[in-house]
Amino acid sequence: MARYNVRDCWMVEELRKEREASQLDIEEITNFISGNEVLTARRREIYERVLSDPEFARDDRYFHSREEAFDEAARKAVHKIKLLKEMDIASQVDKYYFRGAVDEELPTQLNETMFIPTIESQGTEEQKKKWLEPAREYRIMGAYAQTELGHGTYLRGLETTATYRPETEEFVIHSPTQTSIKWWPGGLGHSSTHAVVPARLVTLGKDHGMHLFIVQLRSLEDHTPLPGINVGDIGPKFGYFGMDNGYLQLDNVRIPRDHMLMKYAQVAPDGTYSKPPTDKITYGTMVQVRTGLVLFTAHALARALVIGVRYSVVRRQGEIEPGAGEVQVMDYQTQQFKLLPLLASAYALSSTGVAMMMMFIQGSNLSVRGQIEEGNLDLLPELHATSAGLKAISAEISNNGIEVCRMACGGHGYSQASGLPHLYVNYVPANTYEGENTVLFLQTARYLNKLYSSGQPMSALPTNVCYLATDYPGHASCGVRSVNRLSDPHLQLEAFRQRARRMVGVASSAYQRALGRGLTQPQAWNSTTVDWTVAAKVFTFSVIYFITKNQKFVWLTVTTVVLKSFNDAIEAKGLSPANDVIMRKLCSLYAMYWMVQSSGEFMTDGYMTPYHISLARSLLYSLLAEVRKEAVPLVDAFDVPDEILNSALGRYDGDVYTHLYQWAQRAPRNKKKVHDVYHKYFKKLLKPKL
Amino acid sequence: MARYNVRDCWMVEELRKEREASQLDIEEITNFISGNEVLTARRREIYERVLSDPEFARDDRYFHSREEAFDEAARKAVHKIKLLKEMDIASQVDKYYFRGAVDEELPTQLNETMFIPTIESQGTEEQKKKWLEPAREYRIMGAYAQTELGHGTYLRGLETTATYRPETEEFVIHSPTQTSIKWWPGGLGHSSTHAVVPARLVTLGKDHGMHLFIVQLRSLEDHTPLPGINVGDIGPKFGYFGMDNGYLQLDNVRIPRDHMLMKYAQVAPDGTYSKPPTDKITYGTMVQVRTGLVLFTAHALARALVIGVRYSVVRRQGEIEPGAGEVQVMDYQTQQFKLLPLLASAYALSSTGVAMMMMFIQGSNLSVRGQIEEGNLDLLPELHATSAGLKAISAEISNNGIEVCRMACGGHGYSQASGLPHLYVNYVPANTYEGENTVLFLQTARYLNKLYSSGQPMSALPTNVCYLATDYPGHASCGVRSVNRLSDPHLQLEAFRQRARRMVGVASSAYQRALGRGLTQPQAWNSTTVDWTVAAKVFTFSVIYFITKNQKFVWLTVTTVVLKSFNDAIEAKGLSPANDVIMRKLCSLYAMYWMVQSSGEFMTDGYMTPYHISLARSLLYSLLAEVRKEAVPLVDAFDVPDEILNSALGRYDGDVYTHLYQWAQRAPRNKKKVHDVYHKYFKKLLKPKL
Repeated sequence: MARYNVRDCWMVEELRKEREASQLDIEEITNFISGNEVLTARRREIYERVLSDPEFARDDRYFHSREEAFDEAARKAVHKIKLLKEMDIASQVDKYYFRGAVDEELPTQLNETMFIPTIESQGTEEQKKKWLEPAREYRIMGAYAQTELGHGTYLRGLETTATYRPETEEFVIHSPTQTSIKWWPGGLGHSSTHAVVPARLVTLGKDHGMHLFIVQLRSLEDHTPLPGINVGDIGPKFGYFGMDNGYLQLDNVRIPRDHMLMKYAQVAPDGTYSKPPTDKITYGTMVQVRTGLVLFTAHALARALVIGVRYSVVRRQGEIEPGAGEVQVMDYQTQQFKLLPLLASAYALSSTGVAMMMMFIQGSNLSVRGQIEEGNLDLLPELHATSAGLKAISAEISNNGIEVCRMACGGHGYSQASGLPHLYVNYVPANTYEGENTVLFLQTARYLNKLYSSGQPMSALPTNVCYLATDYPGHASCGVRSVNRLSDPHLQLEAFRQRARRMVGVASSAYQRALGRGLTQPQAWNSTTVDWTVAAKVFTFSVIYFITKNQKFVWLTVTTVVLKSFNDAIEAKGLSPANDVIMRKLCSLYAMYWMVQSSGEFMTDGYMTPYHISLARSLLYSLLAEVRKEAVPLVDAFDVPDEILNSALGRYDGDVYTHLYQWAQRAPRNKKKVHDVYHKYFKKLLKPKL
Repeated sequence: MARYNVRDCWMVEELRKEREASQLDIEEITNFISGNEVLTARRREIYERVLSDPEFARDDRYFHSREEAFDEAARKAVHKIKLLKEMDIASQVDKYYFRGAVDEELPTQLNETMFIPTIESQGTEEQKKKWLEPAREYRIMGAYAQTELGHGTYLRGLETTATYRPETEEFVIHSPTQTSIKWWPGGLGHSSTHAVVPARLVTLGKDHGMHLFIVQLRSLEDHTPLPGINVGDIGPKFGYFGMDNGYLQLDNVRIPRDHMLMKYAQVAPDGTYSKPPTDKITYGTMVQVRTGLVLFTAHALARALVIGVRYSVVRRQGEIEPGAGEVQVMDYQTQQFKLLPLLASAYALSSTGVAMMMMFIQGSNLSVRGQIEEGNLDLLPELHATSAGLKAISAEISNNGIEVCRMACGGHGYSQASGLPHLYVNYVPANTYEGENTVLFLQTARYLNKLYSSGQPMSALPTNVCYLATDYPGHASCGVRSVNRLSDPHLQLEAFRQRARRMVGVASSAYQRALGRGLTQPQAWNSTTVDWTVAAKVFTFSVIYFITKNQKFVWLTVTTVVLKSFNDAIEAKGLSPANDVIMRKLCSLYAMYWMVQSSGEFMTDGYMTPYHISLARSLLYSLLAEVRKEAVPLVDAFDVPDEILNSALGRYDGDVYTHLYQWAQRAPRNKKKVHDVYHKYFKKLLKPKL
């Protein structure tokens, strides 16, 4: 049903020409993006199953009202639970593919992504025994109710309290203020029966800060809210129509002592509190979720690009040579400039995302998760800092990029039929959730500040950041005298590192000067956070660049890990020559685009000069023209079936206008040739005679 | 009912403190933004009337489905027509205010903004007599059906034909292809009875290109589509829920000869065609619409900033000094950096927009429109080029800015209750309509190329662009050695002009080199359009900067024109000292922000160096801290009543959390405590026992 890279189906001439002219081995690139061919095959298998299931149909999605969308999502959620069981899908990778195929936020998903994992990682053996099976079988359904009306990112600000009463061996969970009402948790509004509720633990008169508690919200008999529970939906949002993001106000709700998750911290029956051994433990999950988001947002950008690039090839508008006929929009340099650097960025981010994901593949001793679980926490600071910046930069580039793609489609991008408005509103929250981007950049920055001001030699620093060391042999000038020389990936990488090093230096000096002026450390930090955000961002760029530039290295590493986890034995192999060439061009395009965009930063220390930037600009423009030739195969390689694109503009066959027209015919507003608004309102005004 | 700058109402302490600490004369700034106090008073009068009318209530807007929104909009449209008559509102300025107060795209509005004006400007006296009264009284309702499914910006590509048949003295209007179906026109789907249809005129076997024809679409008896007319809605969009953007397919529809608008070009009964005397005539309206968009988009940004700034002052999140308590988000430098340069830009753009609007105020001999109508077309090329770039830059800055404001509100920005999602989706089309931004930048660029390569002396060029002349006495270096010196507005303006001149130079040399390599002019142009887009953008920045820097000058000009048009005699007056100081700071902030953002461009020719950029950065950061103190009064001065903001986060009293909660209670999804999805889907899964 879903079509992947099928060149022998019917398609418009514009797309056929592009595909026939290409020398690329698309399948190999698809495997490169997926991780390997085993993963590609598995993904396709899961996609086929979901996409051929009429219960998961999405053809009419853009016509639904929010309330219809919620009904749809609840129906799909229940069907998904059944299907996951039938298909015996349990691994995280499989679940990721399944979720991608369903392509909808479902009201039950927090049970799977937050409620169960939290109990798994924070519950005692007894607690796991009690709660996990019912939750896994959806006999109960859990949410994770952390964020409060007045408190988001800053967890220490949470106000909900859990006060222990030794006399009854109960906790009293309470929302003491309006701002302490839980607000936003997915599935909390009308679906969940239970929730893990983070609350300030108070026992024997002492506040021990945030701990986790399981609270039942609704009757398992008839779903009515239990006494003391005020629960509901927070109202319509930008997107996420099918999700009942909810609120929860707790009025002295009593729960038994064993509803506090006690793997690490405990409260004894008499109220005595025992501290957890380390607070680094919880970092692991957070880092994993963030690295997962790199891939998630990169995929969203890729999808927008499939639509933007294909439509730009199909669409003709205006003439370049007067009288020579209307040209494909993709042939305008300005259109190439909008889409192709994003295409390069999508490749860079998804390579990075795959590499990051592989680090966390379960069941491998090599994996980071494995190491953390075995108590090896050495990698955490670097990984935490890098994943924070990577999540922020990938969310920022991807979400801005989706809007650029939408607007690059002209007026039709504004139609829901393009698929792009829906894509945007459902992915843009990635800028805010799991750590707001600015907050994350500043987490990366704190790590950079520590390294940079430590004065350590290169040998003492991790490879990824060694160029921040004082003995890093940086050059005063890049010494480039030709466009050709500037194509050298090593030189490009060096330029990105120089920039990162310099911008970290700028922020660091500003910080030191602020301290010198007598500001406290926190004041000095706050007064230099804009510089630090820049530093973190450019550092992250060089990380992406690093991972991308060494694709083969990543490819090998990734393959090794994956092979292990799948117990397979396929030999890792390099890319075929044509693919290798285009990948290098994409890398170079990525580098040149961001270099020209931030040319001031590259010139800060004279390592590059206006002359070098003019060379970069020349190289950029010639790369635009070259990559343009392979733009269609390169988006085809993202391997997104039409059903998931759900876009009249992005179809594989390019039959854009037929489908825009047919889609509009099905719109609810066109049910009657004369709409009710005529009878209700306009009839009074209009007169039979002029 | 609406509250303007009322300091003595109840408000949260956070906002009271800000307002009490301010020395600004808010009312004076409001008048400055409006144009003058007469305009402020008139705007408030119209706002009061509309906002106190329950028919225009918008409290539940964010709960409506698209279909409910359409019903609402149709109802409001009919009520608006009645009220406009009652209030005797006819001037463009009054209509602009009225539209702002209703704050909704209405299905009837194209009758007013396109159908009637087109007949006014393109119809013969006889045609005006026949059509204008019925249209003005809404006995008929007209759309303007230009864009086609496959043709947008490039008008010469339109395919719809109007073939003249002398034997019956009729035109046959026809959609020859799928791509020629009219697509997008507002009000076309289910509301309009008539449309002005641009079509290729074919007479006596010859194609004369696009001309305008009045076509009746629906019966005036029962609103059914007439024979040969296939009309309907194009389906759901990103926003514009209340608007029936429509499609129109014409199957050999015959209309009488006098339905062609014949003021300029004519077809005689025998089919003989007479050419219009000049094609510049139509430019006037286009330029006017674009200049109007500068103000329109600036107001949208201002509105987003009112929400973003007030909520950032009310919201507390995290600590700067550990243990010192949670701080207002507005005190984070990173938050200031997100919002305050946008605040400065909103002031710059709205000053520019007011100045541009005033040039077109009707009924004044001084006005541009007056001059054009008197046949003086000398100003047109400059005005056309400037208005194109200004529309593009203001749409780009404003729409990106709305999203920045939304995300700066954290999670709550994603709720419809913030008012920001609705604002974004309804204003973002401004990037595409009335000329897609890139297309417009390139129109500006063509003008710049012509001037720059003309080699004319300063004296021969208009003041706004004289610095592009060969004899412009630019300096090799700005010679600045202190932050203080960099605050000098003349020096800043000079830096912006240097940048513009240099970037025009970069594009121009690239273009000349491309010609030298043997490319045709069109090829050379296309291969340098990215550079030309930059050139047009930076040129426009210096225009904005120019208009802003000379606020007093603009203020005087504007006042003069307005006074004339209102036959009033209030003396123009300068700003009070505190206001004057903050306006200068805003100007400087605008300049420094964009200088740092595009530092590479300012360094291109060595006029500025990395050292100067570091000074600019210092000045920028200190301006952030200073402008932050007046941020609340500065957004209060935009004078947007709560009813229009329609935002729980942006309320004048800052009572954010109460209203987020109350709003959610009214959401359709909360009608029942146990939602239907439980009975339909979840009940099957959930079990009464763990």
